Amino acid sequence: MTTPMSNQRVLLVRRPQGVARPDDFTLVDQARPRAGEGEVLLRNLFLSLDPYMRGRMNDGDGSYAAPYALGEPPGGGTVAEVVSSTIDGFRSGDLVVANGGWQAYAVSDGSDLYALPGNMARPSLALGVLGMTGFAAWHGLTAIGSPQPGETLVVGAATGAVGAVVGQIGKIFGCRVVGIAGGERKCRHAVEVLGFDACLDHRTPGLSERLADAAPSGVDVYFENVGGAVRAAVWPLLNVGARVPVCGLVSGYNGDGVTDGSLHELMMSLIIKRIRMEGFMIADHYGAEFETFSRQMSGWVSAGKIHADEDIVDGLENAPEAFVGMLEGRNLGKTLVRIRHG
Amino acid sequence: MTTPMSNQRVLLVRRPQGVARPDDFTLVDQARPRAGEGEVLLRNLFLSLDPYMRGRMNDGDGSYAAPYALGEPPGGGTVAEVVSSTIDGFRSGDLVVANGGWQAYAVSDGSDLYALPGNMARPSLALGVLGMTGFAAWHGLTAIGSPQPGETLVVGAATGAVGAVVGQIGKIFGCRVVGIAGGERKCRHAVEVLGFDACLDHRTPGLSERLADAAPSGVDVYFENVGGAVRAAVWPLLNVGARVPVCGLVSGYNGDGVTDGSLHELMMSLIIKRIRMEGFMIADHYGAEFETFSRQMSGWVSAGKIHADEDIVDGLENAPEAFVGMLEGRNLGKTLVRIRHG
Repeated sequence: MTTPMSNQRVLLVRRPQGVARPDDFTLVDQARPRAGEGEVLLRNLFLSLDPYMRGRMNDGDGSYAAPYALGEPPGGGTVAEVVSSTIDGFRSGDLVVANGGWQAYAVSDGSDLYALPGNMARPSLALGVLGMTGFAAWHGLTAIGSPQPGETLVVGAATGAVGAVVGQIGKIFGCRVVGIAGGERKCRHAVEVLGFDACLDHRTPGLSERLADAAPSGVDVYFENVGGAVRAAVWPLLNVGARVPVCGLVSGYNGDGVTDGSLHELMMSLIIKRIRMEGFMIADHYGAEFETFSRQMSGWVSAGKIHADEDIVDGLENAPEAFVGMLEGRNLGKTLVRIRHG
Repeated sequence: MTTPMSNQRVLLVRRPQGVARPDDFTLVDQARPRAGEGEVLLRNLFLSLDPYMRGRMNDGDGSYAAPYALGEPPGGGTVAEVVSSTIDGFRSGDLVVANGGWQAYAVSDGSDLYALPGNMARPSLALGVLGMTGFAAWHGLTAIGSPQPGETLVVGAATGAVGAVVGQIGKIFGCRVVGIAGGERKCRHAVEVLGFDACLDHRTPGLSERLADAAPSGVDVYFENVGGAVRAAVWPLLNVGARVPVCGLVSGYNGDGVTDGSLHELMMSLIIKRIRMEGFMIADHYGAEFETFSRQMSGWVSAGKIHADEDIVDGLENAPEAFVGMLEGRNLGKTLVRIRHG
């Protein structure tokens, strides 16, 4: 039971082993905090629950940010009302977005707050399409995915907080949008309400085949939010020049269903370290870029800044051995065959 | 024995199984080809041997380009002299770069040729630092790797045709350059002749530890040319925001020593399809970009172009169950807890 001066809080009492369980948490009433000088007291109205939180419940596994402390409420975005304030710019009654955590009241020094319009019709949107998840969808899709009209975009967790926004932005950009989601109800929602061109249920068999049918021109942008079996189904359909913004891998967060350990780790590291990997084939780049290269490299070679090692074998009859040796690393520098002419 | 009108050729007679072997090839003398109208006859002087060729010796495995035909010479870049020509712009005696293949003479319709200066001191460089491998090093490092002064660049196959140029360009750009190569002789060469800051022998134990010592500020650019154990050693040292141009995976081309099958396949697909993957964390992007997002998304929501699903549960006491349910995909849209205040 809450009392007028109490603070309802949900504490993390055990680090989840594999699948998170309700009894990894406990609900308590503790004393409501007091705001000191230069602080505000916040009454949390909405708490955002997000998959990334699962990673922070682990103990220093190199996942997102610092682990949540045991015996404390996990952090988390909230929409909150300012109860009292001694900070310029925040007054009692103001509506803000805060990192208020899994609790009814929180104290902030203001550094993590941003103000919302007081007349906002649906303030909870500041945690969704107008907040972190919408921003992640928008940034990942537009800045990394670079969707072009007529291209095909695939997104998993299609009715989730991020996926639903990704797909809808994709439609605004003129893409064919194919969602993947768990269950018939979600898939119908993605098509009928969110306007996706198609949505496939990953729980029914034959995902790869159904996806190939739904993306007859291949996939130009895959917004990676899920990993695992969904990625495996999408991957063979990626077109040359495809872009894969890697936002999340929710299928692996609970540590179940992950059969591709080292692959999951590599993908996670892309997120945690914001790594860009990009494959290329130099044959694509001849033309103007080769002219530029040629001018610059000739200059460097002439100036002695680039040393050009060549590992030259004489006679075509020695080509197979030289080729085999090169794959084994026996060469030093560029491997060439000088062809003899009698 | 070659005769005046013969053409020495090395034929691919068997697709290598795993490690390529010299007897996958055979040397023959065949009739010298004749150039028809609109063609040139080329005398190949230098043939380039490159790791990518190994992939093309496989039979339609989805690797680079089309498989080489059995019973024919593999394709391959050559520096050649024009013997005779009925094409405008090419005359007998001209020096060209061609796709002449593993043979002494070749015929071309001119579409794959580019002319070299007749007075070129070392025409073979047109297959190395001034040709495909140098271009690959330059493009991958500058356009994808984006090396900045003071950053640390790591490159494997450090004395190979590509790696040696990557490292030297890295020095020109002001990077700390750490090479990895097989054997003491190559490593000494990388440091003493090529000017790398350090070079580590991957054949001696403790590569991870030695690499951590050689890259005390972590790794900002890893030019991926090798894969396998070298990538495994570099990966944990990548800094936030690291760039990984993926150029080749020579450690896996022979099909030996690959312990990370699905990972190798993923990396190969990045090359073959020129895929860009990029991880991100939205927390990095608040500020000016959030303002832009906020303006645009508010407009879309107001205009009804973005539909905002919310899956709201009431009461903090239901947060654990809602969180667990979200990870299992039971939510539809953004998961929120509405916090009750008595």
